Amino acid sequence: MDIPNYINVEQAHKIVQKYAHRTPVMSSAGINKIVGAELYFKCENLQKVGAFKFRGACNAVFSLSEEEAQKGVATHSSGNHAAALALAARMRGIDAHIVMPENSPEIKKKAVAGYGAKITFCKPTLQARESTLAKVIEETGATEIHPYNNFYIIAGQGTAAKELIEDKGKFDIIMAPVGGGGLLSGTAISSKQLLPACKVIAAEPAGADDAYRSFHSKKWVPSENPKTIADGLLTSLGERNFKIILDKVDDIVCVSEESIVEAMRMIWERMKIIIEPSSAVPLAAILEKKVDVQGKKVGIILSGGNLDLGKLPF
Amino acid sequence: MDIPNYINVEQAHKIVQKYAHRTPVMSSAGINKIVGAELYFKCENLQKVGAFKFRGACNAVFSLSEEEAQKGVATHSSGNHAAALALAARMRGIDAHIVMPENSPEIKKKAVAGYGAKITFCKPTLQARESTLAKVIEETGATEIHPYNNFYIIAGQGTAAKELIEDKGKFDIIMAPVGGGGLLSGTAISSKQLLPACKVIAAEPAGADDAYRSFHSKKWVPSENPKTIADGLLTSLGERNFKIILDKVDDIVCVSEESIVEAMRMIWERMKIIIEPSSAVPLAAILEKKVDVQGKKVGIILSGGNLDLGKLPF
Repeated sequence: MDIPNYINVEQAHKIVQKYAHRTPVMSSAGINKIVGAELYFKCENLQKVGAFKFRGACNAVFSLSEEEAQKGVATHSSGNHAAALALAARMRGIDAHIVMPENSPEIKKKAVAGYGAKITFCKPTLQARESTLAKVIEETGATEIHPYNNFYIIAGQGTAAKELIEDKGKFDIIMAPVGGGGLLSGTAISSKQLLPACKVIAAEPAGADDAYRSFHSKKWVPSENPKTIADGLLTSLGERNFKIILDKVDDIVCVSEESIVEAMRMIWERMKIIIEPSSAVPLAAILEKKVDVQGKKVGIILSGGNLDLGKLPF
Repeated sequence: MDIPNYINVEQAHKIVQKYAHRTPVMSSAGINKIVGAELYFKCENLQKVGAFKFRGACNAVFSLSEEEAQKGVATHSSGNHAAALALAARMRGIDAHIVMPENSPEIKKKAVAGYGAKITFCKPTLQARESTLAKVIEETGATEIHPYNNFYIIAGQGTAAKELIEDKGKFDIIMAPVGGGGLLSGTAISSKQLLPACKVIAAEPAGADDAYRSFHSKKWVPSENPKTIADGLLTSLGERNFKIILDKVDDIVCVSEESIVEAMRMIWERMKIIIEPSSAVPLAAILEKKVDVQGKKVGIILSGGNLDLGKLPF
């Protein structure tokens, strides 16, 4: 099993910085006063396709050999990874084959189609998704790009924390949300290399706490009937991601749905930026005092800003 | 009647850049594709207190002599200007006396109080506001800082367009919303000085079209029973503002409420930033094709990002 290290993040960054935005790092005097710490938010909600996922997708697509690339890339996803992979593929001028459940929201179907992907619809079960993807790959010879359990994806996601540290220097703590673990494992690789004394802490919704349970039992536990407004964090940890997380992450904490909504609203109101619920999970952990940040300098990766404005929780 | 010119904007900028954010200029490939132009948004929603108003307030407060400053500043306002003046006064360590109608929303009372202002409540009529303000000024000797019909306020607001042009170079068109005319008159002074060939075009809600009617009749017309979701644009043009606008603005166009909401949602969804309805009015004019932007480079001042997230129009 190939596990990327910081050299792979540096290689990824050479690719990613050509195609992705170097997103700004923002802070809020008001929020800092409320939490008694100095928080710096890395704004991946302002990344292309509205999520950090574009970094990994870019690295995966542009790391393919010319021969591999000609056959395209493939994945099953209805979310940010599908859009990210579609855009990265279009930038390289190759096909992106996306398998989507037929009951995916119209808005997501349109977004992925808008980036020029070739969509294959399937029944909304994991089995149908996997068998349909296998068929697409068999027919096209496309390379599968898993959303998080993938060497190049992890290295690409690590470039967000690399930029955060390059731009703002030392941190006492760096935080990220955790779902499949792509962002968290990449963040941990960069943070521990560049700032060995910095704690890396992840936050997860209590309603989808497989990473929390896996991390603390040191044994991989799958996500079972997860339920949370943070819809980017419903998936189970990937194998590669879990290995890196066990090795490099200092703690994983859980937060309530109420805190996620409170933190999301606080960022919207105070910082005037739109984040999706998943992005609010680390601040929710700070508001719940699950992480002691008093007087500390804390970096937080805001994972994305894609959500249905017609269905807000406030 | 003192009318500022570009030298006064430059003087204002020396003050403003010490205290205000140099806000970012953002753009969206998606919106550019939709409108067929290159749009650059100056993000005053990310300014301190969430609005461009902080620029003018800063300039007004820090331009006072030591003797004047000791007696404080005063205004009647329940909106962004009150918060901006309160914060600027606190930064200089002087009193801000704010007269607010007693029926102002709690959230606004709290915001202004939170910046340390001394609030005097009055009946919710213009007469009560003016007589109460006169009384406060008589008692304290404070200097009145009008929200827009003020030399230093206009010069201060002009620093937003100055930064926009410094950061992004030449423009074919620069746009701003118009209410009292502080932002528009300042924008016109900077734009016409730095880019004489650039058109300055304002947009106004059809439901509060006093500036539109005043500009096209060349005769000052007051706002009568204005009604629009763009609550920052309800006021009538100031005298100084109107003079500058007649002299330097190329056109004023009107837009529907539906277009304002559509433009606001487009910016939220595509750019992942929160703007108040007033900020969306120039893009609304572009979407309504009231301004021909085809193939042009257009700068737009996003005026602010303060609104009640519990009362969204979508």
